[in-house]
Amino acid sequence: MKRTLFTLLFLLLGFMMVAQEGPVNVIVLGAHPDDCDGDAGGTAILLAQMGHRVKFVSLTNGDAGHYARGGGDLARTRIAEAREAGRRFGVEYEVLDNHDGELMPTLENRLKVIRLIREWDADVVIGPRPNDYHPDHRYTSILMQDAAFMVIVPNVAPEVPPLEKNPVFLYAEDRFRKPYPFEPDIAIDIGEVFDQKIYAMAAHASQYFDWLPWTRGQLQNVPEGEEARLAMLAKQRPFAPGPEVKECLIRWYGERGASVEHAEAFEICEYGKQPDEKEIRRLFPMLK
Amino acid sequence: MKRTLFTLLFLLLGFMMVAQEGPVNVIVLGAHPDDCDGDAGGTAILLAQMGHRVKFVSLTNGDAGHYARGGGDLARTRIAEAREAGRRFGVEYEVLDNHDGELMPTLENRLKVIRLIREWDADVVIGPRPNDYHPDHRYTSILMQDAAFMVIVPNVAPEVPPLEKNPVFLYAEDRFRKPYPFEPDIAIDIGEVFDQKIYAMAAHASQYFDWLPWTRGQLQNVPEGEEARLAMLAKQRPFAPGPEVKECLIRWYGERGASVEHAEAFEICEYGKQPDEKEIRRLFPMLK
Amino acid sequence: MKRTLFTLLFLLLGFMMVAQEGPVNVIVLGAHPDDCDGDAGGTAILLAQMGHRVKFVSLTNGDAGHYARGGGDLARTRIAEAREAGRRFGVEYEVLDNHDGELMPTLENRLKVIRLIREWDADVVIGPRPNDYHPDHRYTSILMQDAAFMVIVPNVAPEVPPLEKNPVFLYAEDRFRKPYPFEPDIAIDIGEVFDQKIYAMAAHASQYFDWLPWTRGQLQNVPEGEEARLAMLAKQRPFAPGPEVKECLIRWYGERGASVEHAEAFEICEYGKQPDEKEIRRLFPMLK
Amino acid sequence: MKRTLFTLLFLLLGFMMVAQEGPVNVIVLGAHPDDCDGDAGGTAILLAQMGHRVKFVSLTNGDAGHYARGGGDLARTRIAEAREAGRRFGVEYEVLDNHDGELMPTLENRLKVIRLIREWDADVVIGPRPNDYHPDHRYTSILMQDAAFMVIVPNVAPEVPPLEKNPVFLYAEDRFRKPYPFEPDIAIDIGEVFDQKIYAMAAHASQYFDWLPWTRGQLQNVPEGEEARLAMLAKQRPFAPGPEVKECLIRWYGERGASVEHAEAFEICEYGKQPDEKEIRRLFPMLK
Amino acid sequence: MKRTLFTLLFLLLGFMMVAQEGPVNVIVLGAHPDDCDGDAGGTAILLAQMGHRVKFVSLTNGDAGHYARGGGDLARTRIAEAREAGRRFGVEYEVLDNHDGELMPTLENRLKVIRLIREWDADVVIGPRPNDYHPDHRYTSILMQDAAFMVIVPNVAPEVPPLEKNPVFLYAEDRFRKPYPFEPDIAIDIGEVFDQKIYAMAAHASQYFDWLPWTRGQLQNVPEGEEARLAMLAKQRPFAPGPEVKECLIRWYGERGASVEHAEAFEICEYGKQPDEKEIRRLFPMLK
Amino acid sequence: MKRTLFTLLFLLLGFMMVAQEGPVNVIVLGAHPDDCDGDAGGTAILLAQMGHRVKFVSLTNGDAGHYARGGGDLARTRIAEAREAGRRFGVEYEVLDNHDGELMPTLENRLKVIRLIREWDADVVIGPRPNDYHPDHRYTSILMQDAAFMVIVPNVAPEVPPLEKNPVFLYAEDRFRKPYPFEPDIAIDIGEVFDQKIYAMAAHASQYFDWLPWTRGQLQNVPEGEEARLAMLAKQRPFAPGPEVKECLIRWYGERGASVEHAEAFEICEYGKQPDEKEIRRLFPMLK
Repeated sequence: MKRTLFTLLFLLLGFMMVAQEGPVNVIVLGAHPDDCDGDAGGTAILLAQMGHRVKFVSLTNGDAGHYARGGGDLARTRIAEAREAGRRFGVEYEVLDNHDGELMPTLENRLKVIRLIREWDADVVIGPRPNDYHPDHRYTSILMQDAAFMVIVPNVAPEVPPLEKNPVFLYAEDRFRKPYPFEPDIAIDIGEVFDQKIYAMAAHASQYFDWLPWTRGQLQNVPEGEEARLAMLAKQRPFAPGPEVKECLIRWYGERGASVEHAEAFEICEYGKQPDEKEIRRLFPMLK
Repeated sequence: MKRTLFTLLFLLLGFMMVAQEGPVNVIVLGAHPDDCDGDAGGTAILLAQMGHRVKFVSLTNGDAGHYARGGGDLARTRIAEAREAGRRFGVEYEVLDNHDGELMPTLENRLKVIRLIREWDADVVIGPRPNDYHPDHRYTSILMQDAAFMVIVPNVAPEVPPLEKNPVFLYAEDRFRKPYPFEPDIAIDIGEVFDQKIYAMAAHASQYFDWLPWTRGQLQNVPEGEEARLAMLAKQRPFAPGPEVKECLIRWYGERGASVEHAEAFEICEYGKQPDEKEIRRLFPMLK
Repeated sequence: MKRTLFTLLFLLLGFMMVAQEGPVNVIVLGAHPDDCDGDAGGTAILLAQMGHRVKFVSLTNGDAGHYARGGGDLARTRIAEAREAGRRFGVEYEVLDNHDGELMPTLENRLKVIRLIREWDADVVIGPRPNDYHPDHRYTSILMQDAAFMVIVPNVAPEVPPLEKNPVFLYAEDRFRKPYPFEPDIAIDIGEVFDQKIYAMAAHASQYFDWLPWTRGQLQNVPEGEEARLAMLAKQRPFAPGPEVKECLIRWYGERGASVEHAEAFEICEYGKQPDEKEIRRLFPMLK
Repeated sequence: MKRTLFTLLFLLLGFMMVAQEGPVNVIVLGAHPDDCDGDAGGTAILLAQMGHRVKFVSLTNGDAGHYARGGGDLARTRIAEAREAGRRFGVEYEVLDNHDGELMPTLENRLKVIRLIREWDADVVIGPRPNDYHPDHRYTSILMQDAAFMVIVPNVAPEVPPLEKNPVFLYAEDRFRKPYPFEPDIAIDIGEVFDQKIYAMAAHASQYFDWLPWTRGQLQNVPEGEEARLAMLAKQRPFAPGPEVKECLIRWYGERGASVEHAEAFEICEYGKQPDEKEIRRLFPMLK
Repeated sequence: MKRTLFTLLFLLLGFMMVAQEGPVNVIVLGAHPDDCDGDAGGTAILLAQMGHRVKFVSLTNGDAGHYARGGGDLARTRIAEAREAGRRFGVEYEVLDNHDGELMPTLENRLKVIRLIREWDADVVIGPRPNDYHPDHRYTSILMQDAAFMVIVPNVAPEVPPLEKNPVFLYAEDRFRKPYPFEPDIAIDIGEVFDQKIYAMAAHASQYFDWLPWTRGQLQNVPEGEEARLAMLAKQRPFAPGPEVKECLIRWYGERGASVEHAEAFEICEYGKQPDEKEIRRLFPMLK
Repeated sequence: MKRTLFTLLFLLLGFMMVAQEGPVNVIVLGAHPDDCDGDAGGTAILLAQMGHRVKFVSLTNGDAGHYARGGGDLARTRIAEAREAGRRFGVEYEVLDNHDGELMPTLENRLKVIRLIREWDADVVIGPRPNDYHPDHRYTSILMQDAAFMVIVPNVAPEVPPLEKNPVFLYAEDRFRKPYPFEPDIAIDIGEVFDQKIYAMAAHASQYFDWLPWTRGQLQNVPEGEEARLAMLAKQRPFAPGPEVKECLIRWYGERGASVEHAEAFEICEYGKQPDEKEIRRLFPMLK
């Protein structure tokens, strides 16, 4: 009960602030219809609750990542799952029509990303780092990098008006350590919405309950009921902060950062706007 | 006055027929923001007046065809002119963001064309033949050909539902004679709307009054006032039927076809649906 | 009984000739796993019966042409069907791993075709004309054209020894009339093996009994039993000679050519070896 | 003696005319370092003698067409041979650095051709038709077609000033009959310079005395001495006019056209300037 | 004598172990026909002696790396040398038909690598790091990275069955220090087979005794006799462990690692399976 | 007066040294027509004054970087500005015809860079690092890396003779810190020519006084007069050495390095020749 009141108050405050300053527009780029979710889903829920605008984009249509199905049939399932996930996150979810497993850093794809960023009037763009285990992830990162700055050049993709300012570009957290490990600059406590994040992610049933367990030889261990599935996913993906992220949480939340259980963290890409602390708190108002 | 009444009656009848059978959806593909206009502008006006839906698409943004300007600046002018032309024709006008003079028959561009045809739920697709003086025109034709049939394949561009039937694909008239001259299968008397066609075309001021006269060394002869410009354009582009088109007009209009002064003609592409006479009269109800 | 004896005699004679002159090596290029079959399946059976070597190659893996399935799942079905069809035709059947609906005339694909022709030591290469309703068909033709002559150049694809002579390249029959209609130079009476051709084609069940009927809105009319399906296919695809092919049959078979009921016809491509009558009779010994 | 006097007089007249009207600039495009020579070598000699400017361009470096050598080593030989041939023809000879056997109609290559045509300030551009036995020939033709008109567009390849007028584009003669046979519009009597043409062609020793005989299995029949080689080449390549070219010669030379023994013929491409008779006689002053 | 006995015993043990667990399958990717040899040749000999299966693949055909020869002629020499080297190493050696000096990280090439890894049923894949002096080396590395994980996705290259598990991907040692120096995770004492490695490498005569000395201006110092050449090569390429590799050797071999004279070392790529010590000892049984 | 004498003496000494050893040939690669200037303009002036040869190359024609103009019109302005800047620097300035904002690391572009380096007979090649905020900068770096070593391979771009030795490749200074910060190996005191550098840079008026201020929202603050503009530019771009560069200056200049006010610094790329101190002093004789 208390919590509901608090939430309502929080929402009210959020909308009041948004009304004053205008909403923050965040666009998250992922390679597959589920990548944005893990990377920034909690942050997205928090922002959406406060009245800000978040959009998830999958650069491929996910038509390859399955052991038994494939092609347009699979893509259509993935698109439907993404739509449902978007509903659960409270964000818009768009799926581009590139083949899964074949994303290349072409000029064509760069221009698509530029247009999406502009059309969303993005203040913040989030995507993977260029080192990650899946080539589609790496090239999503390259495409994000290659769109930075170009989004303000009027002669590039001239049919879409350029942004006035280069957005802040952020890398989402990953576990890879070469050529250098992820260095968190911003960390968000997503404890309050962790359950909702898991629930929203679970909309990608063909990913989390078909394909990914299969790649680990665990298909037979996936439970049937929704509750059990949510529990499994929550256990597999706790988004528990490691030492560096914990340190970053303390920087942003003070002492209480040390006890955060579920978090999302971001590293500032050097090719976008370099925000100072005040700007970061404006863009991520849950840090205020 | 009489003409106004007639027009009203005509419109009324048109809407009545459309109401019964549903509108005919026509999409016209051109390389540059003015190509659709000459190819099928009169037909478009007639169809639009009858309540049918016509869309013009320019596959390039026209950012090269000028002697003094270029790039995004020119593209934005061209897009604005196309929008105004669309208003005058009574059609939707979309301009894709490919560089003028650089259109290539890539898979990417083919997929864009497939999506446009599907999204318009097209019954008829009109474009240039693959032999024409400008490479962009030739590759527009190739892209149209390469989209034929593929528009009904659900696994191609799976995020857009396929058409149920392959549309009728038509080539617009041109003057080229190799490997074989244009062979009109359908011819439309556009006399009644010729003035409107010229007026709508004139919206592409940077084409008809800047660039094209310049390519002929006639820039200094372009008059200033609108009326004079419309007269010049009407004189240069009378769309007067040649012998083969005249013959085709007689086939469709009977004797009175021989005296048609302004016409547009189309050749049926072998890669789309092959319509019989009845089907053609349904798709082009002005022939009824 | 008499027929069996005749067939045995025929086979015996065939092997005797082959023993003397060596077998004729024929490679047939199609876009999808069933295209070679219709184009040259009867001829292939006849050649194989005489001890000659025939290979069918599908340049795409057929992973798009279906209304409900797609991707690798569909491709694997298509490959299995092609293997079975090859068994029924008595030929080798190879399926390349290009996406269906996305075949492009790249240098990479050209080199693949060159290698296949060389590895088969082909005397004859058969494929579609560059005008056909499906872009994959057209680009298969372009790739075949682009391989002609290059198969004898040792510096091209140097890891595979070049052919000593440019093979004869042939276009299979189609119904398209522009820029010019199919002009048969060679026509083969396939009456004797027509049933076997239909039976072999029927191995592509996902094509002939799923996808193609669906494209015509006839899916509900496809019968279940094998016999009924073979009858349906035989009725739909009688390979009955039209006037030009009939004329060509008479040229090759004399008077009895006029009564041929099922035929396959080929047009000599100008980019390969130009065979005289004697050479043609050597390459197609059923004409002797 | 008389002939020498005549030649001198001819040269004198030529230079006088050139002085009055300025030289005609002709650029010939071939796929390999010897293709321009056969196509237009006699015409080039005649034009050069009259003071006009001719340039030959090979779009590939010829690094594949040999049975025993290849790569840069072969390319350097081919470039040296082309230079010597140019000297003998009296023309400039440029060899581009594309791999032989791998020429593709890319935008990059199109732009190179556009720049070359502009830098030569060409009045006439000559190249192959798009139907020919070698893919490099076909794509040379496509590149020539794709450069037509674009050479006058200032925004294309903006660092090289555009031509003021679209040149006349001509196809050189070939023997291919589909989709339609070569249709000569212009024919030049090269009898007077036939020996010089053969002598100049012979500079491509690695082509005419190594590779091409090898492709015909005639390598052992190539003589050693220069005279014998020239005789062999003259016999193999007489450039004797066929019926259509003979007819065209009569159109241009009157009665004496019927007895011309060695000729070069050209078909006007529809994508360039369409010259009238007077213009053709200005561009090919030997026809005056 | 004693050594022969030991070797026999060793081989016997090797085969016994292999018989129990099945052989380890290792595939080594290099850019040129000699790159695999230096990177992993000693390890390959040791594995082959123990009954495991090793395959070397050169992604280009080596048709450029020579001062006087080139093209198909050179490629054929390189392929023959690779075959001989394979014989000497006791491994299979395949040479792909990409131009030397032109390797690009295309989807086509990625798919080729995926197929090779699958067809070899690889447990271990070895290749260069993405920072190296030759672009072909760098792009070989990218292609290896881009194949990781994709080898288990059934919808990618569906005609070849996917691997059940992502293999271990390893980088071979190099001297480059940016963005970070090579970090050895595994080091193999190759002292016992060092002479055989040098002898096998020497099969690439056109590399080690023609081209590479030429690039250093040392061509005149290359001796003629085989023995002298082997001595030269052994001196130039001692594969002597540097400080980091020495440390790694001690980790794996204990104290005696400090005195290893010839070694090969590998860094674990983060995009493949991350093996623990036990797994590494299973994959590299000479470490047991 | 004294300074003039000193300069003369300096120039004299410079020319004497150049006469003895031959000039040093330096080529600087930038993405846009002004990038070389900031990166190495002062060094270029100093080298040119001493009689060495420096060339600046812009890999794109700068046809996008403007808020109001674009295309060929803008490119021509940029080319003219580059020419004027080259005059002021005392270097050759070439602008390639790639679209600004669309530079890709294609083989075509790599070959162009290889040819330029060879034709300049370069001892030193300078360009950006592969991490920088603009994609064109990053791909310029990749193209430079991909040209290293290949410039000595005779079979690559065989029509241009290869260099005898791999040049020294240098990265120019930037502010980016990931994956690792710029590490200066060479630092040049440009104090003496700082004013000239600013004056030369100012030739790119459409960059420094139109576009770049616009991107910062400072267009209205750009003064009109030349003197004021030079002052503004000098203030914005002092090229003041940071701590690492200062340290490097001291290494090269001794104590007086600590007080250098304007400097340019370079990091040695691992893919080119690795020069020792003596070699560096020969290549940058102002360090002697």
